[in-house]
Amino acid sequence: MTQIDHVLTAIDANQTDALARLFELMRIPSISTDPAYAGECDKAAQWLVNELNSIGFTASMRPTAGRPMVLAHAKAKRRDMPHVLFYGHYDVQPADPLELWTTPPFEPSLADLPTGKQIVGRGSADDKGQLMTFVEACRAFHQNGGLPCDVTILFEGEEETGSPSLPAFIAANKAELKADLMMVCDTNMWDRHTPAVTTMLRGLVLDEVVIKAASRDLHSGMYGGAAINPIRVLAKIIAGLHDSEGRVTLPGFYDGVTELPEDIAEQWRNLDFDPEAFLSEVGLSVPAGEKGRSVLEMIWSRPTCDINGIVGGYTQKGSKTVLPAQASAKFSFRLVGQQNPEKILEAFRAYVKAALPADCEAEFILHGASPALQLPFSSEALRRARRALQEEWGKEPVFGASGGSIPIVGAFKKDLNMDSLMIGFGLDEDRIHSPNEKYELSSFHKGARSWARILSALAAV
Amino acid sequence: MTQIDHVLTAIDANQTDALARLFELMRIPSISTDPAYAGECDKAAQWLVNELNSIGFTASMRPTAGRPMVLAHAKAKRRDMPHVLFYGHYDVQPADPLELWTTPPFEPSLADLPTGKQIVGRGSADDKGQLMTFVEACRAFHQNGGLPCDVTILFEGEEETGSPSLPAFIAANKAELKADLMMVCDTNMWDRHTPAVTTMLRGLVLDEVVIKAASRDLHSGMYGGAAINPIRVLAKIIAGLHDSEGRVTLPGFYDGVTELPEDIAEQWRNLDFDPEAFLSEVGLSVPAGEKGRSVLEMIWSRPTCDINGIVGGYTQKGSKTVLPAQASAKFSFRLVGQQNPEKILEAFRAYVKAALPADCEAEFILHGASPALQLPFSSEALRRARRALQEEWGKEPVFGASGGSIPIVGAFKKDLNMDSLMIGFGLDEDRIHSPNEKYELSSFHKGARSWARILSALAAV
Repeated sequence: MTQIDHVLTAIDANQTDALARLFELMRIPSISTDPAYAGECDKAAQWLVNELNSIGFTASMRPTAGRPMVLAHAKAKRRDMPHVLFYGHYDVQPADPLELWTTPPFEPSLADLPTGKQIVGRGSADDKGQLMTFVEACRAFHQNGGLPCDVTILFEGEEETGSPSLPAFIAANKAELKADLMMVCDTNMWDRHTPAVTTMLRGLVLDEVVIKAASRDLHSGMYGGAAINPIRVLAKIIAGLHDSEGRVTLPGFYDGVTELPEDIAEQWRNLDFDPEAFLSEVGLSVPAGEKGRSVLEMIWSRPTCDINGIVGGYTQKGSKTVLPAQASAKFSFRLVGQQNPEKILEAFRAYVKAALPADCEAEFILHGASPALQLPFSSEALRRARRALQEEWGKEPVFGASGGSIPIVGAFKKDLNMDSLMIGFGLDEDRIHSPNEKYELSSFHKGARSWARILSALAAV
Repeated sequence: MTQIDHVLTAIDANQTDALARLFELMRIPSISTDPAYAGECDKAAQWLVNELNSIGFTASMRPTAGRPMVLAHAKAKRRDMPHVLFYGHYDVQPADPLELWTTPPFEPSLADLPTGKQIVGRGSADDKGQLMTFVEACRAFHQNGGLPCDVTILFEGEEETGSPSLPAFIAANKAELKADLMMVCDTNMWDRHTPAVTTMLRGLVLDEVVIKAASRDLHSGMYGGAAINPIRVLAKIIAGLHDSEGRVTLPGFYDGVTELPEDIAEQWRNLDFDPEAFLSEVGLSVPAGEKGRSVLEMIWSRPTCDINGIVGGYTQKGSKTVLPAQASAKFSFRLVGQQNPEKILEAFRAYVKAALPADCEAEFILHGASPALQLPFSSEALRRARRALQEEWGKEPVFGASGGSIPIVGAFKKDLNMDSLMIGFGLDEDRIHSPNEKYELSSFHKGARSWARILSALAAV
């Protein structure tokens, strides 16, 4: 038997204890958003430090302006092995509304369903269950000859509140955090039987525009007809951002947008993704994006322009005959490939300024600009992870994308130039952030086995 | 000397007493919006009842669901004379912010300015000073041979709160309120030396549109690109309502819009109205309405379509990557001439429905629909009032329009088919609704003389 066989056997043999450990961690209500639970967050962090120290890591709690970080290092049994940084978070969402839970949120339990056993409780899937899959894989290596890679583990305690302390922590600890590859276990499988690697994250430009016209709100009876209405100006700007094909009209907007490699396009076409069901679940029936694109492309690999909010004038009940002095809208651009956030911001603002009629000014408020992140399909790490997942699950993993952004991935790319391997074993149905959050027992078990195989594959000569 | 000469002489001779009477009325803080002042409103109404009974009227307080009406009748000295209904309101706006008043709001006083004496205090111009011009004219007739016309007087006490009790009162007292002509003294002069008759009031259609798309708010990362955005749909609807000439695009919108009679157009062209100053006072410089129209036409005699409010999605500080489930806007159409409010509402809703893409629904909330009101330029009453004002002021009155609406005028037109002669002696600078409200003493004096001349002219055989 090779090391990986022993490790997988150990993971299987240790399932009862592994679950007991996860339950211990889940019993700690480490809610980051409520200062009343700061002590519980410390307790969860300390629990993880103890756990990691017991399986060969040098682990410590690191203070921040908010909840502490857990940072741990362990060396591979051999020298000059790849160095991976694993990221997870030990904080959880608040449990309310409590009355909707069928079991107490911080008393984890197993539910036996026709589809398999489920771990039920706050944090089961987001992210305690997921992060423990990696810890259990490391434990099995520790007990069976040592880690195949150098491993750094970073668990933060503020992911659910937007990671406010993370940027400063990364900046202050660059050397200690730098590794060859980052691994993030906060994503989902394609379905219960099919693993997934998230290889693309859309970037995001967030810009707010305030159109200012008259020096004060005007009476529409007295001024209506003669005075410019900033709502009309804003509406015209918004209406001009897309052409009749659903494409964004900004000059240069599609620079850096490339087509999918054929094998990935082929995989996406063959996925059992039902666009009608995806849309009908939220009351829609017709894809509203670029003509000629599939829904998966629209949400995963094509850039967008959307308006997330608009307000101007009187918005309460009834009517008020006002011509508002200003109107504003929040715009978001989802970026893909090599689209340049700065250039897109520039093109957008130039477009708005050119669209302004006399007497109007535009004020811009930037809320963020980050590029898309893409793990190259040609990456060796991705190739090895793909094979490892295929061996564990007996199925080719789906090379998916995420329409949303994962800030930590962008931060490590930007500050430490590290790519991320985003692999997770959650399911879309896990009710994260909601009552009765759950995690499949099979995800917990096979997740640990998957990480063991991936670490082993990355280290193979 | 004819009767009117005696009447005018009496008005001149009674100025000191007339002012003392107005001050008495102004000392009563008849603020309608604050229930704490309900007793003061009753007091003001009772004061007017007593006053009118003392000068030959049969006056009484009439209860409503809110503040009481004052209703009074007096017959002309001769039979078969024209019957006029004079409307005014005894309620006033609240006085706050109190600290901005240079004299106490309910302690009326005379200020001596280079431009003339001013009556200072809440209600001086809106509307106690104005309504007392008519009462003083009636008093002078009473003391000098009797009224030349049958006169009904209606003073309400809820004008400043939107006249909630008025429609029911009119409906319940149609026979008692019906007259040949209504007179409303709640408008302004063109300037200190030039009287004005408001002959046109724009109508108003107020409709709110709610565009509904997905069944709930969506995450723009997860759905952005594939899901329809109701803000975009609404923006496109708004952007399509005007053409490049600033004209409203709804089919049939301009049906019933006629050009001004040449003499009125000529008068407007020659008015010392400065469009640049009108716009620059509110920070604007370019008229935003239909190309080829003057600013006075835009605000007085041309129809408009405006958006008074818009809201959708996230509108607080910062950003939120949401695709809202709905977005809404409040639309207002100012109507002129014979434009039909129902037809315009219908055309608007048909346009919105036709503009809806798949998966979107529109909900409409009607907030009002009333036609424009226009006293025919050929009206005999108008001709006589014009001559009377010219005799008093030595200048041709301006036949102006009001871009806004005066609900009472519409209500009497609709329910009792009565036209209104809107003549008032306020000035734009009177600071109504604001601290240090004032009314020119000359307006008070010559206003009474004007009404005397008008009543006399209407009665002339």
